[in-house]
Amino acid sequence: MATGTFDLLHMGHIYYLKEAKKLGDILAVVVATDATVRKLKHDPITPQEIRVNLIKELKIVDEAYLGHEEDMYAIVGEIKPDIIALGFDQIHDATTIKNELKKRKLNVKVVRLSKYQGESDLEGTRLIIQKVIAAHEFQKKMQRIEGEP
Amino acid sequence: MATGTFDLLHMGHIYYLKEAKKLGDILAVVVATDATVRKLKHDPITPQEIRVNLIKELKIVDEAYLGHEEDMYAIVGEIKPDIIALGFDQIHDATTIKNELKKRKLNVKVVRLSKYQGESDLEGTRLIIQKVIAAHEFQKKMQRIEGEP
Repeated sequence: MATGTFDLLHMGHIYYLKEAKKLGDILAVVVATDATVRKLKHDPITPQEIRVNLIKELKIVDEAYLGHEEDMYAIVGEIKPDIIALGFDQIHDATTIKNELKKRKLNVKVVRLSKYQGESDLEGTRLIIQKVIAAHEFQKKMQRIEGEP
Repeated sequence: MATGTFDLLHMGHIYYLKEAKKLGDILAVVVATDATVRKLKHDPITPQEIRVNLIKELKIVDEAYLGHEEDMYAIVGEIKPDIIALGFDQIHDATTIKNELKKRKLNVKVVRLSKYQGESDLEGTRLIIQKVIAAHEFQKKMQRIEGEP
């Protein structure tokens, strides 16, 4: 089982999912709800239904689900994965997760994956957003210099 | 054969590719180079290698190629598709394409696909870019009101 926001898909996501898939036979992906993303990071660009539908379109993905808002462990009880694969930069603490799973009598291995060594610096969602904004500000500056088109 | 920029993947892309796939057995996707995108639309957000690699990760896609810069028909001669599927909003003119293919003795059917009736207004790359910019300007405004964090 892999988890994430998957807002504006990029090769870092693909790498994470491929590394997760290597650990087992079936890759189930849990996509965070908009409410959860707002709580943990920022407003998502893409709504949750579209994020989960896009994830389902990836070859590497066997199953995709939207997470629950109240209890992040509820979906683990439903999917019953053998392994949870954490991305290298995911804020979740592996020990906390292991303890919470034990409390719920869920026998799941938790594995922290290695970092993606991308060939480009345009990998993360934040970098994509930065590039969009930089292009927009450059365009506005040009319009001030050249006049409106 | 389907073609496009595929910058910031969204459900409109998926719909187009699924409609294209319905016309045949194998879906080959030609991704426009950065130079071509700059000429026809705007600076791409994602570099061409990443755009083609992401397209390859989609279940619906059997083969993906980067287009040629000089002659957009060169790749058609290489792939030799039975059918070229044009998206409903692609600027290419079907008649022009048919004539150019005939000149090159390429016997390919050209089909214009129907419009995507998305359930969300966040479908197109341009809409994604607009949303990123709106979120950024809102944040800047809040910082002016509340002071820097």
